[in-house]
Amino acid sequence: MSSRLTSVIPDDSDGEGDSDHDKEMRKQCPSCQEDYDSDYAGRCTGKECYEKANVTQEELKREIEYLKAKVAFLRFWSPLDHQNRSSGPCFTDIVLVASDDGGGPSVPVPAHKAFLVSRSPVFKAMLENEMEESRSGIIKISDVSFDVLHAFVNYLYTAKAYLDEQMAYDLLIMAEKYQVKHLKAYCEKFLVSKLKWKNSVKSYTFARYHNAKRVLDAALSLIIDNMAKLTKKKEYKELVKNDPHLVVEIYEAYLAKQINTAAQKVSFYQNCY
Amino acid sequence: MSSRLTSVIPDDSDGEGDSDHDKEMRKQCPSCQEDYDSDYAGRCTGKECYEKANVTQEELKREIEYLKAKVAFLRFWSPLDHQNRSSGPCFTDIVLVASDDGGGPSVPVPAHKAFLVSRSPVFKAMLENEMEESRSGIIKISDVSFDVLHAFVNYLYTAKAYLDEQMAYDLLIMAEKYQVKHLKAYCEKFLVSKLKWKNSVKSYTFARYHNAKRVLDAALSLIIDNMAKLTKKKEYKELVKNDPHLVVEIYEAYLAKQINTAAQKVSFYQNCY
Repeated sequence: MSSRLTSVIPDDSDGEGDSDHDKEMRKQCPSCQEDYDSDYAGRCTGKECYEKANVTQEELKREIEYLKAKVAFLRFWSPLDHQNRSSGPCFTDIVLVASDDGGGPSVPVPAHKAFLVSRSPVFKAMLENEMEESRSGIIKISDVSFDVLHAFVNYLYTAKAYLDEQMAYDLLIMAEKYQVKHLKAYCEKFLVSKLKWKNSVKSYTFARYHNAKRVLDAALSLIIDNMAKLTKKKEYKELVKNDPHLVVEIYEAYLAKQINTAAQKVSFYQNCY
Repeated sequence: MSSRLTSVIPDDSDGEGDSDHDKEMRKQCPSCQEDYDSDYAGRCTGKECYEKANVTQEELKREIEYLKAKVAFLRFWSPLDHQNRSSGPCFTDIVLVASDDGGGPSVPVPAHKAFLVSRSPVFKAMLENEMEESRSGIIKISDVSFDVLHAFVNYLYTAKAYLDEQMAYDLLIMAEKYQVKHLKAYCEKFLVSKLKWKNSVKSYTFARYHNAKRVLDAALSLIIDNMAKLTKKKEYKELVKNDPHLVVEIYEAYLAKQINTAAQKVSFYQNCY
């Protein structure tokens, strides 16, 4: 290609040429002065340095536009959407099948092995080690409906999901099972935003069983702030019956908060007198 | 999956249940009050609305962190890096070969058809229509070195490139040829950032031949601001010899600016008296 360029572009052979060959990816952070690799509009990715640097609102907006364009470029089409939109092949090499789909014939969800391997360590182990799924080209997913499986695969390609509360629960379980951290965080964020008193025990129980720390902390905090109402809730009675150790954990958290508050009061009065 | 959930999570059947099934993706813009589809931290993607809404610096920073995490999730490994890092297969189904690689045996660059089709309308037409390349599994790329082809394919997977000026020129040509707009914009931005008097004629000439409007405007502006020095440049003399019509265009732009400046002066004096 260089030969093609030199025929069009005058050479810099008179000594004015830019010979330093600056590498775009090596930059110096305006805050910590360290060299760093970054492609984020010329800013160090270290959070502390980022915050110390005196960036303007305009710079932040430009960075957002830059990142949005990058997300749009990197976002892949989902093979199922591709089938609906285009007559061309989409070169899939594997299908996923939901095994809990109401007894009817399961609709396979097409995908690319390369994508599944890239997004999930579980699929990576499964497909790179020539297990049954890799040979047959079929991955059976148990305890999941077609809708959830479709949404899950779609997220792996696009990082987008249309969530309601139930879908967020179901996708979080899939994300946990297949170790897709980004999806798990996405669902947790949604569930925390939907947290209210009426679903607090449900959220707490779910989070406790599925290792969703962000939801767990938020739900537990809401519950122990409203302990007087707790024993009247139907879900509380069901929880006492089905999972009493989870109820014990609520009381332990409540007690710890009471002790902490009492200790703070003692400390306050000791400082006053 | 629902059955599994209900065994763990108390049901909301006492009437407190959240029955509205809010969809996360339908939101109302705080500025224009229109419903919109968005996954960007709860903000309408319309630029005007975005700017009118009174967002704080903290909100912008949170949005940047959110987008960075999304870019990290969506970014794919490049098949060549994968070969270096992992012993497992990476399920590639096509190779690209640089035909201008110094006469030695060309090293093939492995890739996935699905990826090439997704990123470039040219590859899409080539591979979806069962042309020779699709049948043979080999795409020959003319006038390009292995390094540039490798960087090009790597960008399609990762949206990252290590640029110096020559690499930016070469990748811009590839981006133009295969219609990868995001890469073209990325190279243009880099070349504008490297624009100086010493490479202004080279940049102008390149931009004029490769439809790089952003570089063209910046280079032309720099040249006509320094017309007195232009005729002394070696590249100018070469350009007069090889591409005189490009020199004419520089003079036309200069003349237009002169006329415009003169008209503004007349208008200024007319307003004064």
